[in-house]
Amino acid sequence: MPRIIDIHTHIYPPSYIKILQSRAPAKQIPYIATFPDAPNNHRLIILPDEDSESTPSTSRGRPVGPSYWDISQKIKFMDDHGITQSVISLANPWLDFVEPEKAAETARSVNDEIDEVCGWYEGRLFAFGTLPLSGSIRDIVGEVERLATLPHLRGVVFGTSGLGKGLDDPALEPVYQALEATNQLIFLHPHYGLPNSVYGPRGNEYGHVLPLALGFPLETTIAVTRMYLSGVFDRFPKLEVLLAHSGGTLPFLAGRIESCIAHDAHFFKEEEKRRGIWDVLKTNIYLDAVIYSEVGLKAAIDASGADRVMFGTDHPFFPPLGEGESEWLSVKTNYQAIDKAFGDDKSAAELVLSGNAARLLRLD
Amino acid sequence: MPRIIDIHTHIYPPSYIKILQSRAPAKQIPYIATFPDAPNNHRLIILPDEDSESTPSTSRGRPVGPSYWDISQKIKFMDDHGITQSVISLANPWLDFVEPEKAAETARSVNDEIDEVCGWYEGRLFAFGTLPLSGSIRDIVGEVERLATLPHLRGVVFGTSGLGKGLDDPALEPVYQALEATNQLIFLHPHYGLPNSVYGPRGNEYGHVLPLALGFPLETTIAVTRMYLSGVFDRFPKLEVLLAHSGGTLPFLAGRIESCIAHDAHFFKEEEKRRGIWDVLKTNIYLDAVIYSEVGLKAAIDASGADRVMFGTDHPFFPPLGEGESEWLSVKTNYQAIDKAFGDDKSAAELVLSGNAARLLRLD
Repeated sequence: MPRIIDIHTHIYPPSYIKILQSRAPAKQIPYIATFPDAPNNHRLIILPDEDSESTPSTSRGRPVGPSYWDISQKIKFMDDHGITQSVISLANPWLDFVEPEKAAETARSVNDEIDEVCGWYEGRLFAFGTLPLSGSIRDIVGEVERLATLPHLRGVVFGTSGLGKGLDDPALEPVYQALEATNQLIFLHPHYGLPNSVYGPRGNEYGHVLPLALGFPLETTIAVTRMYLSGVFDRFPKLEVLLAHSGGTLPFLAGRIESCIAHDAHFFKEEEKRRGIWDVLKTNIYLDAVIYSEVGLKAAIDASGADRVMFGTDHPFFPPLGEGESEWLSVKTNYQAIDKAFGDDKSAAELVLSGNAARLLRLD
Repeated sequence: MPRIIDIHTHIYPPSYIKILQSRAPAKQIPYIATFPDAPNNHRLIILPDEDSESTPSTSRGRPVGPSYWDISQKIKFMDDHGITQSVISLANPWLDFVEPEKAAETARSVNDEIDEVCGWYEGRLFAFGTLPLSGSIRDIVGEVERLATLPHLRGVVFGTSGLGKGLDDPALEPVYQALEATNQLIFLHPHYGLPNSVYGPRGNEYGHVLPLALGFPLETTIAVTRMYLSGVFDRFPKLEVLLAHSGGTLPFLAGRIESCIAHDAHFFKEEEKRRGIWDVLKTNIYLDAVIYSEVGLKAAIDASGADRVMFGTDHPFFPPLGEGESEWLSVKTNYQAIDKAFGDDKSAAELVLSGNAARLLRLD
């Protein structure tokens, strides 16, 4: 069996599920609740308007079950799909919503729990940690440094809001500095999407397709482009960022970003001071291979290199809708894209399936 | 000299400039105005907040000069860049803002003026027409049918708002029907972008880069995905749509769109009724080659085929910022992307540079 490493796979550990359940009575998003007309069906509500009264309860948010919190289901999923090792990460919205005074303690608790879970399946599970971003900079930097000492942790996962003002916020510099100094990668993942107004008056007729398929990738692209424009990669040239969903849309739009900068009077005079976006793509950026097509995967490889793209599944999201299917279509599609993109070049495919993650994240 | 056809090149004919100037006293966007601290510098304001009092007048909107309205400058630009023929189109925001009762008359006048201008350079200039979308459906369909009779017109250009509710609006069906029946292509082009809030509190520090490089492409992608999800391409299987900027982000995200549909309970039962997105990309969609990178262009070609991608410049936008440069960097970048993407396959490059446009738009 070939070695396969999944670097995009989420978990809500039991203590986090409890937090989400405790928020249900006040309907404080995010929360997990049942609704009166489907009392056995737990729904996870993570975004505004997902719990609108006009939506049937079975369409509110998304169904949530043991695959979200029971690690044995993760291991079964790995076995079913030939996955040797997984680098698990807390799913969105992480700890973005936690009260500032509880942030540091909650982060420590969740990270310790995840580290412990990884130890139950020694060698098969590693993790990206979560930062107390609603807390103080001192709390955040402290947790970055502590994560570097936990045996199964290999970096951090976070969203696009940073301290609330995005990832181009100068107040984040000590965090980037600590991540760079401790050689911990950022797994940058979307959550907030785009305002619903952009999907038009019929947006709610299309299920979750527009926000998930288009809003998520653009949110990621905007966030990393703001980091780039604000000079984060000039000030922290060794910072490493793994972008979810093959970079959102960055591989496709990098040329347009470069051209818009070169033609904007605002940047004209200082242009030569900034590192090129293609240099950043090949030096600081890593991309997962969660893109569901040969076309997209090839663009990701062309943009960052076959030595910077890594297999992922997005488990437990996008499960099969049919009854009793143990092979997930979402996973199969990404495997097929890798097969098609590399053809007979098995050694390059092996880099994406496991070699890059093993090397970068020290998984041996 | 090889034949080269530019299918993405804009003009604001003199009558349209007059409309824009007439709106300056009331600051009704869109308008053209000078500002007191730079009285010789005409600025084109086409989006909200571009004329904010806090912005220096030389950063408001964009400079506008004869390259926008003087057709002899278009011809000189074509000569400077080896362009044999151009298919010109009114630039955004077209006639979206025109009072309903004046829409039909304004559209006829602008289209007649553009058709006449094309006749001044017989064989070198063709055009996409503009529809009176703020008018009645009868006006719009009438103009579609009239455009089919004008000698230099080869289709229509419009934005993403349709009649105000987007391109998935069922009220547009008679328009799609008339376009399909008269074999006229839609050139779909962005204008409105995304709400400024998505660019964060520092968004205005980055010039126009985020809205132009990211907002524009996503606007196009959302619009065409809404058309697709609402079944437009099922009901009008011969409708042809040329997407600006190589499809926005559609080639890169098509796999994710397909996967999100296949995993959304909302679409699960009816899934088999919908045509596949890759089928639509290879049957109904054409893409321009205005993407400024080999990576993006290859993805566009992979998604739709080398027989469906067509060279464009976006003139008169993205002029060189330096003094006295006659070769435009924005054009050179797109030529280079074609050279790199095709390498020694000159016949495929020739399709993109001219063959596809000549065949599709009957430019002989």
